[in-house]
Amino acid sequence: MRFAERMKRMKGREMLNMMELADRKDLISFAGGFPSPETYPMEEIKASFFRVLNEDPDGALSYSSTRGYVKLRELIARRMERNYGLDVTESDIIVTNGSQQALDLTGLLFIDKGDVVLFESPSYLGALNALKSYEPDMIAVPTDEDGICIDALKDTLEKYGQRVKLIYVIPDFQNPTGRCWSEARRRAFMELVQQYEVAVLEDAAYSELNFSGRKETPLVSMDKANQVVYCGTFSKVFCPGIRIGWIYTNPRWIDAYLLLKNNVDLSSAAITQRQMADYLLHNDLDAHIAEIIETYRARKDAMAEAFAREMPEGVSWNSPHGGLFFWVCLPEGYDAGELLKLALKENVAFVPGQGFYPNGERKHEFRMNFSNLRPEEIQEGVKRLGRVVRIFLGRAD
Amino acid sequence: MRFAERMKRMKGREMLNMMELADRKDLISFAGGFPSPETYPMEEIKASFFRVLNEDPDGALSYSSTRGYVKLRELIARRMERNYGLDVTESDIIVTNGSQQALDLTGLLFIDKGDVVLFESPSYLGALNALKSYEPDMIAVPTDEDGICIDALKDTLEKYGQRVKLIYVIPDFQNPTGRCWSEARRRAFMELVQQYEVAVLEDAAYSELNFSGRKETPLVSMDKANQVVYCGTFSKVFCPGIRIGWIYTNPRWIDAYLLLKNNVDLSSAAITQRQMADYLLHNDLDAHIAEIIETYRARKDAMAEAFAREMPEGVSWNSPHGGLFFWVCLPEGYDAGELLKLALKENVAFVPGQGFYPNGERKHEFRMNFSNLRPEEIQEGVKRLGRVVRIFLGRAD
Repeated sequence: MRFAERMKRMKGREMLNMMELADRKDLISFAGGFPSPETYPMEEIKASFFRVLNEDPDGALSYSSTRGYVKLRELIARRMERNYGLDVTESDIIVTNGSQQALDLTGLLFIDKGDVVLFESPSYLGALNALKSYEPDMIAVPTDEDGICIDALKDTLEKYGQRVKLIYVIPDFQNPTGRCWSEARRRAFMELVQQYEVAVLEDAAYSELNFSGRKETPLVSMDKANQVVYCGTFSKVFCPGIRIGWIYTNPRWIDAYLLLKNNVDLSSAAITQRQMADYLLHNDLDAHIAEIIETYRARKDAMAEAFAREMPEGVSWNSPHGGLFFWVCLPEGYDAGELLKLALKENVAFVPGQGFYPNGERKHEFRMNFSNLRPEEIQEGVKRLGRVVRIFLGRAD
Repeated sequence: MRFAERMKRMKGREMLNMMELADRKDLISFAGGFPSPETYPMEEIKASFFRVLNEDPDGALSYSSTRGYVKLRELIARRMERNYGLDVTESDIIVTNGSQQALDLTGLLFIDKGDVVLFESPSYLGALNALKSYEPDMIAVPTDEDGICIDALKDTLEKYGQRVKLIYVIPDFQNPTGRCWSEARRRAFMELVQQYEVAVLEDAAYSELNFSGRKETPLVSMDKANQVVYCGTFSKVFCPGIRIGWIYTNPRWIDAYLLLKNNVDLSSAAITQRQMADYLLHNDLDAHIAEIIETYRARKDAMAEAFAREMPEGVSWNSPHGGLFFWVCLPEGYDAGELLKLALKENVAFVPGQGFYPNGERKHEFRMNFSNLRPEEIQEGVKRLGRVVRIFLGRAD
């Protein structure tokens, strides 16, 4: 029996391995991209489930509409209006199973085999994997501390012309690097892409985990040519186990997404959509987010301090002001995949950076998550890792 | 901005329209394929949600593994062993968002543009739509009261040769016709397909809604060549609002499905998977199914009686012994799509049959759901419909 051609490209099991590592109890794992269960507003979540099941059990347990529970879409629209000054109505939104499903549906909507998709370099592994299904050529665009490089992007758009269908970007506290695009870069990006017939997929998964207090401007708020698809999620700021994300874009595209959402799973679960809507109605999610930001900031600080203390010379890292990740750079020529083998023996894990590059071009970097461990676990884990790195670089005492 | 080529094929909005009709309160709708909310075991479901949220809230609200909650997979495996005498372990199973997602993932796994997919004629609209995304040529194979026609299937397999990648079938109480394949037909089908390098997608959505008391043999239990993918769901026998279905197939294919499931949405919701597992652990689903079968049998009988009373000569229908549907046949030359326009004015709805044919070849049939209305509503709805049909056929008094 022959699989489809696309299956030949699907060799990377990094994401699956990562999800399996989560089960090893002895391990200090910096590998996941998971929020911390300690931050879930447990009592409020329970109360919402109870209310929803008592007030309208038929509605909660039957099929939802394909577009998603209307009250949830209204509440999402209102939050986007409040947070970003956008003019959003419920009909501009489709509910998805986390933002991962939004990435997959976007591939389904736009990509034919042989089309070109542009990515930041590096970019989110799960997006690379999802879009790969539709068999595009994946082209990496150089990215610096301020975001995607505009000159390089322009050259790439010119080079591939009409073949470029989609640009996938994570402007806020990017996965894996933690980088946040500058305001100037955002404006320059939108000015450039408006000159091309290309869709922009703006992944806002980390936008609300902002430690700086300064609101970043989403690309979709500068979308004069109706070319941006914004995808959001409650996974990182609320909890991931209910799988609720959303797509916000122009009405014509929403219509097309609706057909595809119906094809792939009819609708998202009614019960979890209603629970989320009930929570938003009865609680202040923004106040909750302010609290978890303090928790995560302390963990980020703990990691930065531990790095400074434990890492030998030649190793560098960023210090993010949001999101869930540090990005660590070994000296050139060293392979973080090899380092991981040693690290696992010492019961500490991370994700090697190579998989985050569309073409696997750089091996000496790795990603460290700081959200899902307590400060003392972070210190212990980085201590173990520092020891392994020193041995790996031949700098052990 | 240019969509992918596949979008040109996606014109049929029947499924979406069907889901929207559900909101019209004045309407007696026979259009959906929905189970009746009255049958949901509400108190038991609430109890399960409460237990799961109290006993392991962290687990219930975090990411599930991509394969699905292990205890749920064990319970599904045990049920399949008990019901069908199969040798199933938890690792042979992946949890999906209803069985619809299993259909989509199967397209993603097997179909390249231009491959051939075979369908019963007619077949489930939602499967046609889902598989269409992967741009196969869709070929209808004639089907009679006993199932897919073996000679015609053989001719088709010979004609298209290696191009045939997948055969999609619903052996039990098929959607839309309510037909159930005979035992002899099942055996002949498996003997034939084992001679070809082709995957078989067995959609078992209605298998457990069996009014006859005689267990049907699933194709997967005769799968000597490891070519059958079985997909099951709790949507019809428990409730659809939690979106829990599953795939059961051979280990190599399970591995491939796992990569794809990770790509499309990382994992199904932990909370609803755990709720389902808890329900299965603390309750007897089979006893519950026995109860709802009595409810549905009464509704089926009410519809059969109402048809006999209300329909003019020249109109025919089957009498299913399971599932959710009657299939009604107008005299040749009449278009059920036109009939629907009149019916909606009289506040009664059904689904025209044309969309269920891969190539839209027959217009004079339509599908009637009997599960989601009480007997007295069924009688009133069929009475309205009978009046409309008589006018439509020019046989009104």
